[in-house]
Amino acid sequence: MSAAKPNDELVFLPLGGSGEIGMNLNAYGYGPADDRQWIIVDIGVTFGREDTLPGVDLVLPDPTYLEERREDIIAIVLTHAHEDHIGALGWLWPRLKAPVYATPFTAALLREKLKERGLLDKVKLTEIPLKGNLKLGPFDIDFVTLTHSIPEPNGLAIRTPLGLVWHTGDWKIDPDPLIGETTDEAALRAMAEEGVLAMVCDSTNVFVDDHAGSESDVRKRLIEIVAKCKGRVAVTAFASNVARIESAIMAAKAAKRTVCLVGRSMHRIVGAAQSVGMLQDIPAFVDEAESTELDPENVLYLCTGSQGEPRAALSRIARNEHRHVNLRQGDTVIFSSRVIPGNETAIHGLYNAFLERGVELITADDHPVHVSGHPGRDELKQMYAWARPRIAVPVHGERRHLIEHVRLAHELQIEQALAPKNGDLIRLAPGPAAIIDEVPAGRIYVDGQVIIEAADEALTERQRLGEEGAINIALAIGAKKHNIVAGPNATVRGLSMGDEEELEDALDELERVAEGAFSRLSHSDREDDEAVEANLVRAVRKAAEKLWGKRPLVDVSVLRV
Amino acid sequence: MSAAKPNDELVFLPLGGSGEIGMNLNAYGYGPADDRQWIIVDIGVTFGREDTLPGVDLVLPDPTYLEERREDIIAIVLTHAHEDHIGALGWLWPRLKAPVYATPFTAALLREKLKERGLLDKVKLTEIPLKGNLKLGPFDIDFVTLTHSIPEPNGLAIRTPLGLVWHTGDWKIDPDPLIGETTDEAALRAMAEEGVLAMVCDSTNVFVDDHAGSESDVRKRLIEIVAKCKGRVAVTAFASNVARIESAIMAAKAAKRTVCLVGRSMHRIVGAAQSVGMLQDIPAFVDEAESTELDPENVLYLCTGSQGEPRAALSRIARNEHRHVNLRQGDTVIFSSRVIPGNETAIHGLYNAFLERGVELITADDHPVHVSGHPGRDELKQMYAWARPRIAVPVHGERRHLIEHVRLAHELQIEQALAPKNGDLIRLAPGPAAIIDEVPAGRIYVDGQVIIEAADEALTERQRLGEEGAINIALAIGAKKHNIVAGPNATVRGLSMGDEEELEDALDELERVAEGAFSRLSHSDREDDEAVEANLVRAVRKAAEKLWGKRPLVDVSVLRV
Repeated sequence: MSAAKPNDELVFLPLGGSGEIGMNLNAYGYGPADDRQWIIVDIGVTFGREDTLPGVDLVLPDPTYLEERREDIIAIVLTHAHEDHIGALGWLWPRLKAPVYATPFTAALLREKLKERGLLDKVKLTEIPLKGNLKLGPFDIDFVTLTHSIPEPNGLAIRTPLGLVWHTGDWKIDPDPLIGETTDEAALRAMAEEGVLAMVCDSTNVFVDDHAGSESDVRKRLIEIVAKCKGRVAVTAFASNVARIESAIMAAKAAKRTVCLVGRSMHRIVGAAQSVGMLQDIPAFVDEAESTELDPENVLYLCTGSQGEPRAALSRIARNEHRHVNLRQGDTVIFSSRVIPGNETAIHGLYNAFLERGVELITADDHPVHVSGHPGRDELKQMYAWARPRIAVPVHGERRHLIEHVRLAHELQIEQALAPKNGDLIRLAPGPAAIIDEVPAGRIYVDGQVIIEAADEALTERQRLGEEGAINIALAIGAKKHNIVAGPNATVRGLSMGDEEELEDALDELERVAEGAFSRLSHSDREDDEAVEANLVRAVRKAAEKLWGKRPLVDVSVLRV
Repeated sequence: MSAAKPNDELVFLPLGGSGEIGMNLNAYGYGPADDRQWIIVDIGVTFGREDTLPGVDLVLPDPTYLEERREDIIAIVLTHAHEDHIGALGWLWPRLKAPVYATPFTAALLREKLKERGLLDKVKLTEIPLKGNLKLGPFDIDFVTLTHSIPEPNGLAIRTPLGLVWHTGDWKIDPDPLIGETTDEAALRAMAEEGVLAMVCDSTNVFVDDHAGSESDVRKRLIEIVAKCKGRVAVTAFASNVARIESAIMAAKAAKRTVCLVGRSMHRIVGAAQSVGMLQDIPAFVDEAESTELDPENVLYLCTGSQGEPRAALSRIARNEHRHVNLRQGDTVIFSSRVIPGNETAIHGLYNAFLERGVELITADDHPVHVSGHPGRDELKQMYAWARPRIAVPVHGERRHLIEHVRLAHELQIEQALAPKNGDLIRLAPGPAAIIDEVPAGRIYVDGQVIIEAADEALTERQRLGEEGAINIALAIGAKKHNIVAGPNATVRGLSMGDEEELEDALDELERVAEGAFSRLSHSDREDDEAVEANLVRAVRKAAEKLWGKRPLVDVSVLRV
């Protein structure tokens, strides 16, 4: 590696994930302030919430700062295939256009995403083998094998002329991860010997005291539990956890049950896993239609929808709306998953529906059928002991996680610890680490097929439409005398009087009010569309508030004839 | 008590709360099937959720079945003043019109509600003393003192010629409730001696193994914690828990801090408590404006908003938008409350905001600063041991709670246990308990100031408006030639192209599409408003889906001139 030049700096810039769990986008820059070269590490999404962002499908980090420097972006490097690390690539790549590097399983899933977005031929995607190395300008990157809840989780040892940054990505310490190797302790110890300038580290479970636990424990329990089940068994798990999927398959095999995959992403992940050599020696699956011919005690359904997503397989099964899968008295559903905060009501709705039909439930509440993929406090301590960084930079968390992680780093006597916010440009070297700039950062949204800004007025309008409804008043005004020649006609949406007739009366009232407001306009105002609209809107709004106790959006359409 | 007549039956009918936590409405009927007399016990609300019911303020049990029998309703009896037990009275009383009975604190809060709804002079509200008795037709009702998380929680011992029903209402076993007496064990034991036909019982915490814990423990810890705080202290708690409020006041006093009440419902509940003789010997409060003149170590703010409600005091303080209360580095916020499922994100948002400013947080996650008001499994067992009912009827819970409660009752060898659904009419006597009918039950909504049915189309329209937006096309058609003489004019709401100019182009495109669709109509279709609308709606919808990848609501306003 060449020596650092006098004005060189090594900087770290999180644009997503430092302030929320999800939507990770991290960048490292190297060079003098006016001529940095960049690599991007991960580029993920989070999901819109119906209560605050109705109709928004995906939330992405705003890449504007990097987009303006895209000539200087050498690479986009992906640590692993979870949506919060790769999900934004298909949307943001056209604005960044850098080559992409990933290990085989991540690359397999990414290819499908790129295909969906019509980008497969455009993106230069290079597969890196596990424990591979990548030399990109001033960056020399080792892929370090870790364990997590998806195949091929990699940390990145990023060497630069100004020092080595250990970027963990998402990890836990699983002594027996079932698929893939265990944590590459040797690499971590070697790194520490070499000297780690900074560790940029997962903070998700900093409030969890003990270890995450091992996938192999879950496998044992699933085998035990499924062996005891009498009727049909359905297991729901996060599809991307291939080790878990394999465990369910092995539990089925041990109990002489044939596995039926239910749900699109189950098929997608199993396909991707098999394409890179995983899940090879497993019994054949049965398809949904054929599964109905099996005796109840000979089938195991492996389903998506553990979070109660209304359109996922499990919700349809719970509502008894699934074409092929019917669960009833004596059958069992195993939730080999956790409750993601915010999904309680939906998941409890599933529980209620299944219990109502006499279906037995096994959940992580009282059975060890799930383990987290992120490091608890003990594991974090172990990682600091291995890597011995001079600087701790917690990422991947809300403010409370990052702040707590800084406290932990101080406890562990790490020389320096900084909890960055998205957009904080941190100089890691030379000199002590410091936030040297705040660059534009934020969220953008995938709304249908359009990418929009967080501040887009359409979003506040939609929230208001959802809560308050809409009124439209159309009227035709004569070109000569400027009097009403047709209408005003009122249309309402999302507003009820609880009774059809009363609603008709309310519409009549709105039309009367609009007409009255028009009649009070001066002659010159009547010639002015904007004046007509403003006055009628005001009057109709007031009337609506009286009628419904609500503040609907009111539009007036003036036609001049 | 007179003897039962040959055809007499005693029935129980839950219309709310058996299938959800919240919105309790229970009724007891006595008499022959065609001539029953009814009492209603509790009449509560639950709250609308922005994700599934945007804009709906309150959710109420549908009272139709009882409304149709309102001549035979002798009384509405309230067990305690929580919203999920009294909140619907102001909305549903006009449809039921029965006299209301409650203990003094409940009556005090109810009066305010009735005043808001203009019903204070109409409702006959009778105050019953604690441990009082009420004779109503075939029902002879003892108010039995219990403990809960609000003053004056009463169970009802309902005697009828066909047996005694023990209706617990909400309860826990608090050996030192601080305000009010402890659980009236003597009354419970006496009831058991007399023979309890059925116990209708709270199921909220049936999945919680241990005891709820005592308010007095929380008081001790609050006093200890506040004593150690250095800067300003804010305590947030459910306002209706007057014992907790008193604990915070005493913790302040012990630490030489003056209490400042922040938030309307804090003032309201403290007022109601004082009006019935509680919170008498407490130091004077300081008002918000004056509080700013106190030294930080001499003030304690008692705030509403523990659930992260965006408009409540605590959220405004967290966002630093409160006029008088400013918290900063070195100050402390104590969440003497629990996280109600579904509110995680909002509450964690508060945590993040406070931590960001260096404010210390004390929460029930790691400090014993909150106890539940509902009985854990141990307490349920104790209650069954006391009351020894022949029939267990779990209420106040989702299906999963009620089903688990039935399992518990079977474990305890209760002769019979039934988990009712809202609308199940259960004959409790004579003979074994059985569901003898399913009557109309459901939810209705307070939407603005209108009460609407759950199936009201306005609600699905609003959900769609919120997610997909709205388009209106107005056009004027000449009366003679049936050609377009003005328009079509497109208006969109809640739809963005990410760019003003592109939105203009999209509007032009919609207008072109509408015009094109009109031009393809036959002459006779052009004369028919419905045909014009249907065809234009179809064409514009398709165009919108292409432009935005969304399915907005499309309306076409045809004006004939």
